[in-house]
This record gives sequence, structure tokens and C-alpha cells, in this order.
Amino acid sequence: MTILDIIEKKKKKIELTREEIHYFIDGTLNKEIEDYQISSLLMAIVLNGMTMNEIVNLTDEMLNSGDKIDLSDIDGIKVDKHSTGGVGDKVTLILAPLLASLGIKIAKMSGRGLGHTGGTIDKLESIPGYNVELSRDEFIKQVNEIGVSVISQTGNICPADKKLYALRDVTGTVDSIPLIASSIMSKKLASGADVIFLDVKVGNGALMKSYDEAKELAQTMIEIGKRFNKVVICILTNMDEPLGLAIGNALEVKETIETLNGIGPLDTTELVIEIAALVVSKINNIDVEEARVLCLKNIHNGEAYKKFIEFVNAQHGDISKIEISNRVLSIKAPSTGYIKNIDALGLGEIARLIGAGRLTKEDVIDYSVGLELAVKVGDKVNVGDELIKVYINEKDIEMNKILDCFTIVEEPTEKPKLIYEILD
Amino acid sequence: MTILDIIEKKKKKIELTREEIHYFIDGTLNKEIEDYQISSLLMAIVLNGMTMNEIVNLTDEMLNSGDKIDLSDIDGIKVDKHSTGGVGDKVTLILAPLLASLGIKIAKMSGRGLGHTGGTIDKLESIPGYNVELSRDEFIKQVNEIGVSVISQTGNICPADKKLYALRDVTGTVDSIPLIASSIMSKKLASGADVIFLDVKVGNGALMKSYDEAKELAQTMIEIGKRFNKVVICILTNMDEPLGLAIGNALEVKETIETLNGIGPLDTTELVIEIAALVVSKINNIDVEEARVLCLKNIHNGEAYKKFIEFVNAQHGDISKIEISNRVLSIKAPSTGYIKNIDALGLGEIARLIGAGRLTKEDVIDYSVGLELAVKVGDKVNVGDELIKVYINEKDIEMNKILDCFTIVEEPTEKPKLIYEILD
Repeated sequence: MTILDIIEKKKKKIELTREEIHYFIDGTLNKEIEDYQISSLLMAIVLNGMTMNEIVNLTDEMLNSGDKIDLSDIDGIKVDKHSTGGVGDKVTLILAPLLASLGIKIAKMSGRGLGHTGGTIDKLESIPGYNVELSRDEFIKQVNEIGVSVISQTGNICPADKKLYALRDVTGTVDSIPLIASSIMSKKLASGADVIFLDVKVGNGALMKSYDEAKELAQTMIEIGKRFNKVVICILTNMDEPLGLAIGNALEVKETIETLNGIGPLDTTELVIEIAALVVSKINNIDVEEARVLCLKNIHNGEAYKKFIEFVNAQHGDISKIEISNRVLSIKAPSTGYIKNIDALGLGEIARLIGAGRLTKEDVIDYSVGLELAVKVGDKVNVGDELIKVYINEKDIEMNKILDCFTIVEEPTEKPKLIYEILD
Repeated sequence: MTILDIIEKKKKKIELTREEIHYFIDGTLNKEIEDYQISSLLMAIVLNGMTMNEIVNLTDEMLNSGDKIDLSDIDGIKVDKHSTGGVGDKVTLILAPLLASLGIKIAKMSGRGLGHTGGTIDKLESIPGYNVELSRDEFIKQVNEIGVSVISQTGNICPADKKLYALRDVTGTVDSIPLIASSIMSKKLASGADVIFLDVKVGNGALMKSYDEAKELAQTMIEIGKRFNKVVICILTNMDEPLGLAIGNALEVKETIETLNGIGPLDTTELVIEIAALVVSKINNIDVEEARVLCLKNIHNGEAYKKFIEFVNAQHGDISKIEISNRVLSIKAPSTGYIKNIDALGLGEIARLIGAGRLTKEDVIDYSVGLELAVKVGDKVNVGDELIKVYINEKDIEMNKILDCFTIVEEPTEKPKLIYEILD
């Protein structure tokens, strides 16, 4: 067997065997296969697809390429939640303590952001003192004691996926449902949770631009989950406009705190409650409506927020020390009308440009900068009304670039649907 | 513009502009584009194809990536001939002096062989003393004086094509008609001839395995020729069994000499006469049948062979010193019957294994070794009759491997058609 034989088969749309996929992943990891051969095969996969058997085998090979996290020392059902990435997506920060306040265990490893999407770990690091690097024992102990811990991905989880992803990023081979599904699922399966909740974002600010491809991705990941005997629930949600109002690390923590106190933006609150209710319903085997009441109750009685403080403090974070830049620009509406569109991808890029994100892994984040929307799609604005606040620091930005992200029209516009579909 | 934008377009089957193809070829040559990005784009081209405009632009960019040969100092019409590569293909060696004996100018640069196909230059180098490296002035002078010269490709012809071809070879991206057509035509156009004759081989021993793809390749190259105002004639010929009887460098020169003396194998003779007649007919604007008579006449009156000797001597070759190994094995028919198939690819590989060819550019050729068929497809054999002679030297070979290349059946078999079609 050579890599050329495997490329030849994929070029002709012939299903690769388990052994061939093993050879590919093993050779990728051991650097026995050249990068230019890997990328040629990746493009053939992008264009010719993969069968479900191939996807499951690829997932399993990547899963087995590195360490697997053993969460068996944690009592009860462990839940993991993953988002395919959006702009202003702080759901994990709110959801984790809410679920923990309802007795569900969240032992979550999370990643840093790259490009226009932020990472949960970066957001948590905007809380001064917050320690993202617990030892395995500290991590397990904290989840057993207070029900929740979020740490940075440690150890050697799915190194083959890391290698492939780095290459896909620079060879135009990211947008393949088989490759995305196996990449996400290999990491989730390696993380050891019993229930995996996946928020598949759809729209301009997301990897999946259309509903149909997002649904296909969700169905593929659910099918992979079944083959590995894991419960996988997917929700398809809108990412044409940013989620909530805040974009940027410290600002998103601030919105997290507001939402946990029942005064967050409507869309953020709606999505967190929906996901939490689905998880609680599944785990406690109760009706979703009943689960929703439990979730709302723990927001309104302060239990969820109390759990957030307990969790952040346990990891040495101090929310009283969060810093938000006090150099603030206000962008005003240039005309009267209705907001038809707020470009999530565009605002994500702007947040990155002013220092809230990274273009390369080496870039240093400024936690204090970001954007705060004053409007959402469907809102009416008068000329001169504020559209967005820009919290900047050292890096400047052209005002017009920000204004370009807003489309204001004369006719009234509709609020977009946030939650498209739930699949399991 | 970035290479990722270009990959993205090709992935979506959007036609690349001239500027994008320029950027790709320029970046390939200047090493500004990484190999893994080039191979990703190449695979997208293999699977999504190219429009005629893209193919013409790619050809032109590769043509302009290096030197172009100026043959304007040679009087008369200059003809170039190219074969897409087969096993036992010594047509150029015979055709060039035959055409020169009829007053047509052959200023040919030729390549070395790689893999199972031999190269014209290697075959000529099996003639002791033959100098493949003339200066430009010597080359032009010889063609003006005796009508023919064959030298090794010199200078910096189509360096972008060289770079791409090396990468295609190791990334499973060879078999693309747009890439093959632009690669061949860029080199032929850079070589400066007025009339380009292309022998497109079809079958097991050729790059093109089916008639349909061979025809598409021929039509594509003819169309490229039209866009560059060149006369291109294509012939589609069978390469399921080797051409002629000899495979291997000195053995093929021996067959060349026999054919020029009118005692060569039928298929080799038929093909050379057909191509020569087509060229003479086109250039002298006479009927093909009339041209055929002129060609046959120059074989039978010895003019073509005299020209061969004149041409080889002019380049200091001495045919009396050609060496053929005298360690000869004879492979006999294991059963009585009819030859149904002689595996050209298999015998080409065996010739390479015993030293007649190269696997890598660094391999050194043994000119004295090779194979000499005693039978052709359609022939009747009795058990114990000789099938093939193997001229070996230092490298041994398993007898069974050679026998595996012959299929003998009980029922009579038909002689295959050699020439499928002529296109211009």
C-alpha cells in the first residue's frame, strides 16, 4: 500500500478501507507521508466526499492517534458542549454553571480562538487570575465538588487532527462535511463525556453558510455518535448576526454575568435556556417544558450565577478585576430605518483587528477590547441613534469598516429566527 | 489575490482568469506558493477540469516561464514529432531521417525516459560517441546542412511545467487531460517548429488507457495549436502490446536500422510510413497516397537509411560500436495456442528492472539490455516456441514475471488494429 494508491482510489470515488485510512493517519502523524500528498488526498476528499464507514473510520483513527481523557472518576452523567464557532458566542460560559447548578457534571476542555471566532478559554482568561491549566486530579476534584470546570485542552488529544487541520487551513480544504464532522467528533469522543451537545451555527458568521449543509453536518455527527454509543444532540442556530450584543473577551464575560442574572440579551438567553432544557430533559428523562422551568428557576433564584462565581473562584478568577477599555467610540446610524442585516463575519473580523482575536497562533489578545451592539436585526433606528460601541485600546480601526457591517432599509424588517431545528 | 482564493474558485468550478493562472504559475516558479497548496489546486483541476480558455492560458503561462527556441535561421518548414509515450516506441529514430531524406527539416529536442517508457535521447546515447549536447549554432547548422538533428532538451524550457510535473508525479495528479495537454503543448510550442505531429498512444502501456480519453487529449492539443496558429496533426495508435519487437535502447536502434532498410517489424513500419506520409502530404500539399509512395521509395532505395547514417555520424555516433548484451535468456511458450495479449506496461516495467530504464532521474541506464519479442498478438505458437528473448547483464529478473505478460488462449485471436484515427 502506498499513499498514491489511496489517492487514486479516492479520486475514483472508491471507498477506502479501514487499513487505508489507518495508513493515511499513521503516515500523517509519523511524517512518512509528505504534506503535498496529504493535501492532494484532502482535496480529493473535499470534492468526492466520504461514505459513513469512511467517516467513522477516520474519526476512530484520529481519536486513537493520541490521549483519551478518562472521566470515570467523576460521579454522574458528564456533559460536553461544543459550538462550531460563531461571533459573540458565549453560550458555554453561561450554560456550564447553569447545568452544574442543576446537578449535571460539566468537565470541559476548551480551545482558544483563531480568525474571526473567539475561544471560550480566551474569554475565561479575561477574568484576572483564572487558571486554565489545572492538573488532571484538580480538574476531576473540582468537577466532583462543584460540578463544573473549564480548562484548556491539555495532553496530546487527537494530534493527527491537529496536523490535518493546520494543513486544511492553508490548502482550501476546510469546507468538507466528512472532514469537519470527523475532526469535531474525534476530539469530543476523546474528551470522555457521556452526552455531547453540538451547537451547529448556520450563516454568514459561521463555517456552514447554508441550512442544508449545517443539517447534513449535524446528521453526520449524530450518526458518528451512534456508532460510538454516545448520546449526541444537535441544535441548528442562526449566525447571520452576532449572538447577543457583546463581541470580545471581557465584554462577553460581562454579558455572561448579565444573562446569568436574568438581564442578558433575549437571543443569548433564549439559546442558553433551550440548550439547557434539552440537556436536562434528556438526562433526567423529563419533558422539555418541565426542564425549561427548572432552568429558568435557577436563573431567577440566583443559583446559576452563584455556581458561576463558585466555579470561577475555584479556578482563582476574580470578576471584580475584569478590565474593559475606557476608550470608547460610538457609531451612529447614518439614516433612519430598520436594521436588515448585521454582518457577523465582518464584526468578527473587526473585533480581531482591534485585538480581541488572533490571526496567527502567536498573536497576543487584548482582553479589554471589543464591540457592543446597541441594536439587533429588526430594530428601528433614527438617524444619529447609536448602532454599536467600539471599545478600543492600542489598535485603531476605520469607522467606515464598522458602518459597512450594518444594512439599514426603509421598510420594516423581521427579527430572524434564532433556533432552526433540534436533531438527535 | 491569494492562492487560497484560486483554490476556492477551482473547487467551485468557476473559470480562472488569465491573471489567476499567471499568479499560480509565477508563484509556483518563484516558490512563493507552497507545494502543499499547489498539489491541492492540482487535485481540484484533476477532478473539476479546466475550460479551453483556462487550458490555453495555462499553456501560455508555462510556455512563457522559460526560454523559447528560435528556429528562424533554419530554411524551410520545421517539423516536430512527439509521442505521449509507449513501450518499444522508436518511431522518432526512424521517422526523422526518413523525413529529412524527403527534404523536410527536423530540429528536434527530445527527453530522457522515466518509468516504463524509454526516451529517444537514451536510445540515441546507446550509439557510442553520439553527442546529444550540441550548441545552438551547431544544431542549426546541422539541420540546415543535412536536414536533421536530435539533441537533448537544453536551456530553460518551460521550467514551470517541470516543477508541476515533478509534483504531479508524487501526488496522484498526472491523469488530467487539461494538465497533460498544456504540459505537452507548452514544450512543443517553446521548441519553435511550424508543424507539430503528435502520436497519442492508447492502451495498457500508455498514459491514456481508453480511446475516448486519448481522443479528448488529441482534440484538446489540436485546439491549443489553433489558438497559437500552429499546425497540429494527431494520430491515435494502439499501445496494448509493445510497438515492434525490440524494447531497450541498443535493441531499439538495431530495429530502427532494420526498419530503415525495409526489414523491420510490420507494425513499426506501418506506423512510421503513415506518420511520414501525413507530414509529407500536409507540407507538400499532395495526396496522402502519393506521399506514401514517396516515403516507401526512400526506404527501398536506401535514401532514408543513408540519411540516418549521415545524421548519426554528424553527431559523432558510430553504429558499428553498438553493444548488445550477449547474456541472453529465451522464454518459451508453456502451451500451444494463440497470443491474445502481450502486456506492454508489464514488459516496460521488466525492461526498466533489468536496467534499460529509470525509476528515478538518478538511475543509470544499461544500454545493452532489453527484450526482443518473437511473437505479436494474433500469432499462433506451439508449446516450447520462443516468446521473447531477454538480453540481461548485471540485473536478474524472475522468468515468471516475464511469462505473466503473455496471454495464450486456445481459440484463434485477431491482430489488433494499430492506427485508430487521424485528427487535425
